[in-house]
Amino acid sequence: MAEEVILLDFWPSPFGMRAKIALREKGVDFDLREEDLSSKSPLLLEKNPVHKKVPVLVHNGKPVCESLIIVQYIDETWGHESPLLPSHPYERARARFWADYMDKKISVGGVVWAPTGEAQEAAKKEFIECLKVLEGELGDKAYFGGERFGYVDVSLIPFYSWFYAVETSANLSIMEECPKLVGWAKRCMQRESVAMSLPDQYKVYDFMLEVRKKRRAQ
Amino acid sequence: MAEEVILLDFWPSPFGMRAKIALREKGVDFDLREEDLSSKSPLLLEKNPVHKKVPVLVHNGKPVCESLIIVQYIDETWGHESPLLPSHPYERARARFWADYMDKKISVGGVVWAPTGEAQEAAKKEFIECLKVLEGELGDKAYFGGERFGYVDVSLIPFYSWFYAVETSANLSIMEECPKLVGWAKRCMQRESVAMSLPDQYKVYDFMLEVRKKRRAQ
Repeated sequence: MAEEVILLDFWPSPFGMRAKIALREKGVDFDLREEDLSSKSPLLLEKNPVHKKVPVLVHNGKPVCESLIIVQYIDETWGHESPLLPSHPYERARARFWADYMDKKISVGGVVWAPTGEAQEAAKKEFIECLKVLEGELGDKAYFGGERFGYVDVSLIPFYSWFYAVETSANLSIMEECPKLVGWAKRCMQRESVAMSLPDQYKVYDFMLEVRKKRRAQ
Repeated sequence: MAEEVILLDFWPSPFGMRAKIALREKGVDFDLREEDLSSKSPLLLEKNPVHKKVPVLVHNGKPVCESLIIVQYIDETWGHESPLLPSHPYERARARFWADYMDKKISVGGVVWAPTGEAQEAAKKEFIECLKVLEGELGDKAYFGGERFGYVDVSLIPFYSWFYAVETSANLSIMEECPKLVGWAKRCMQRESVAMSLPDQYKVYDFMLEVRKKRRAQ
């Protein structure tokens, strides 16, 4: 049976980018369907009735939701010769811990949509602290798991496409604060799977300006 | 080498209960260490410097943090003949989805510590809606995964020990709202691993009253 792989996505979503990177790392052909979040498709509402959010991976009709779960599913389903998660349970737990940490702590929205100067200062401080913890974990390794690009890298690199928007919103230099992390991000960007999946930073910035304008008009 | 397995725990924590159930399901001997959360042990701060929270599983000196990650680690490390997660990637993704749903949506604290009547009403409504979604997923199955007790059951059953505290705080009957879910909980309680790991509902209720008194005094 020919495989049918559909990804319901919204291009600026870092979570959708995770799924795209993982699929491309594994060489899986997929049908990328862009959602209009102001008018969600019947397929999205049918396949993710609980959260009604992108990304959703639909594999032969069956939905997989939530980006980290999607990446793990992709890893367990395709390309076992190039796994994203480490093989040892302890290393797997560590990788899961850091991906979970990002989802609990990184708030790009906190910085770029913060309503007031004070709230933005707090969000900016938290954002940088979080990146510094991650930079500490990266240390002098090429990738989070060591020499090979893997699960933690897939989970974090999408946020890099929002760095310029964050920097200009919050008047900060991530390069100055976290030089090793930026070096790592540039290394990741040399991979075709990543370069193909992350939008241009200026396009994300324009998107942010547009959303901000709409929010203010409301 | 003899294995050293330590669990840093706090008895009313549903998250700690998950780890205890999983260890007992796998027949792993462990050294249970109760933390005083008002004065955390040096071991807790050393082993979980990022979140500083229980539970932490320390296996031969190496820490694993975050309850769902701990349960997966236990499943991947011990007792492969009685797995908690299903073997098929799609079913694994589904199990992970529901456990993740609980962590994002169930807020016992929202109900029992809600400061005002209105906030409590909202928290109560959300709590019941969440349980109803889970009851819908359970349907007429014996356990969430079908005939066998597994990952989703381990993740959810600890909250049952808080049901009496929630019911008396919010003046509601979970049995009336979600009879199938209560039937499932009673079925789970017949397992030694669960019965040994969940505290008595009245003890949890007394604990809640005590914490509430302290909070009001502050």
